[in-house]
Amino acid sequence: MDIKECGEFGLIDLIKENCIVEPKSVAVGIGDDAAVLIPTHNMLQLVSADMLVEGVHFDLSFISPFQLGYKSLAVNLSDIAAMGGIPKHVVLSIALPKKINVDFVKELYRGMKNIAQSFCVNIVGGDTVSTHDKIVINVTVLGEVEPEKLQKRNGAKPGDFIVVTGTLGDSAAGLDILLNKKDNFDFAEPLIKAHLMPFPQVELGRIIAKYASSMNDISDGLASEAKEIALASSVDVMLDAGKVPFSTELLQRANFFRKTPLEYALFGGEDYQLLFTISKEKYILLQKELSNCNIKVVGEVKQGTGNVFLKEYNGKFVNLEPKGYNHFR
Amino acid sequence: MDIKECGEFGLIDLIKENCIVEPKSVAVGIGDDAAVLIPTHNMLQLVSADMLVEGVHFDLSFISPFQLGYKSLAVNLSDIAAMGGIPKHVVLSIALPKKINVDFVKELYRGMKNIAQSFCVNIVGGDTVSTHDKIVINVTVLGEVEPEKLQKRNGAKPGDFIVVTGTLGDSAAGLDILLNKKDNFDFAEPLIKAHLMPFPQVELGRIIAKYASSMNDISDGLASEAKEIALASSVDVMLDAGKVPFSTELLQRANFFRKTPLEYALFGGEDYQLLFTISKEKYILLQKELSNCNIKVVGEVKQGTGNVFLKEYNGKFVNLEPKGYNHFR
Repeated sequence: MDIKECGEFGLIDLIKENCIVEPKSVAVGIGDDAAVLIPTHNMLQLVSADMLVEGVHFDLSFISPFQLGYKSLAVNLSDIAAMGGIPKHVVLSIALPKKINVDFVKELYRGMKNIAQSFCVNIVGGDTVSTHDKIVINVTVLGEVEPEKLQKRNGAKPGDFIVVTGTLGDSAAGLDILLNKKDNFDFAEPLIKAHLMPFPQVELGRIIAKYASSMNDISDGLASEAKEIALASSVDVMLDAGKVPFSTELLQRANFFRKTPLEYALFGGEDYQLLFTISKEKYILLQKELSNCNIKVVGEVKQGTGNVFLKEYNGKFVNLEPKGYNHFR
Repeated sequence: MDIKECGEFGLIDLIKENCIVEPKSVAVGIGDDAAVLIPTHNMLQLVSADMLVEGVHFDLSFISPFQLGYKSLAVNLSDIAAMGGIPKHVVLSIALPKKINVDFVKELYRGMKNIAQSFCVNIVGGDTVSTHDKIVINVTVLGEVEPEKLQKRNGAKPGDFIVVTGTLGDSAAGLDILLNKKDNFDFAEPLIKAHLMPFPQVELGRIIAKYASSMNDISDGLASEAKEIALASSVDVMLDAGKVPFSTELLQRANFFRKTPLEYALFGGEDYQLLFTISKEKYILLQKELSNCNIKVVGEVKQGTGNVFLKEYNGKFVNLEPKGYNHFR
């Protein structure tokens, strides 16, 4: 059955099930002119949106509808994580070609509901419309954060460490593998998974938010995200190439595409790890609280005017002008 | 200059100005991973989204970019009005072809900012992405409402009046004129304006919300909206053809397209007037408060099971199965 036969209301019925996983904060979910939510007293409200266009942001020849649904929510939850917040609700707008199969739509929503349930996030509304062209998905995420835990980009101070929550470059290498269909997919599976089903670091973000001075999620590559912090905080960020963490899989495969792991990390993007700055004293406290977690200092904050310098493997410093991910590339 | 030369960050700079008109409720606007908002104590939060696709929901051959920007916000503000709420913030996601002219984008945002400012609504964030296809606009609106003023669809009671806030059918007739390019545009101007620049009834909605038992905005035609109230409230709605208010322009021009004013009102859609139910006692109070305002009783609520009946001009009743606006038409 294609979606045209199903109709908008048939589609809403199909979607409506299992959307509310945390009902205490929802007075009215899908089905009225607007959803009605009950905000938590004394919390700030967070809101962010991402639009994904078929052929620009995803390619259905290598992402399944389940993965697409999962990922389109994941990248939004990551934005809330980057503020130190708790994602609470999402609003989903989707433009679908009339001839698309209903099973595709079911799988898309299954992916969305899968990650929404894992993170206790309610799907409270949205819009489903037809298009003559490619699929477009817009996710708006609403979250909450305590005022004292709010993490912005502008709080980095000279002397702070700059730290990442996990290995970088995997996602971009996974994309190269998918685009070129060149590698043995089984061996490269962790890289491909990093690209197709990124894991938003919400839980870590909540802990880090107690100690950090600024935070970003790494959607556009380490260089670009460090630059945003440097500019917003009016400091310089000194990254140390020797300290950037890589996965074994990336180290084994980066060369395949004549790129270095460092290039993938700096300019690749879509890792959705967190990048944050923190005073050296608070870093010790954070390490204690996290114990087994692989956070990694990748550099330091200096007085400056918004530059990002990279200490290369040979010890020389270069000024990085991020040339990474650009929506209008 | 086309948008590709401008780049995403150039575009954000272009957009950023005059976005915050009510700064008290915004801790962080455009420019971080998420906007940070300060909710009003004891208010419920409202959220709604609408996606508009070029070629499906709008046609650039007859809507200007300014009007498109205006309208894409207007339809969302109307959803908040329908809940009895105050629109507070919008989040805008826009997919634009790379070759689109920057002036087009400026005009689009000028239209958005024009209506946002009129209604004291902040533009707090969003996403601007490229597409190989048609323009797609998604607006998510956030609003607030006092719990006691919240209007849902499910509160209509037998004995209530069903009431509209203004003339119906104008917008759909305006669309017919635009599509067929048949009429003298000057004379039909009020109909065309009703279609291209609908006025969301936020202020009226706030007053009505003190008295009404249920409310909807008329986005999909009177028949369809009445049906939603009837179904949600488990009542029947009896509409009286003789009481539906029409503009002089519609009365003069409906015949041009071999339709009656009533057909436009029932099945046309996009009027963005409010449709509400109210007890007869409270209707008297509401009339006193509104004095000069043209609200109009169009029928009555009866015990029932979700049907909408129309009392035709000849006095006969027919059961209306709304055949109006459908996104998957």
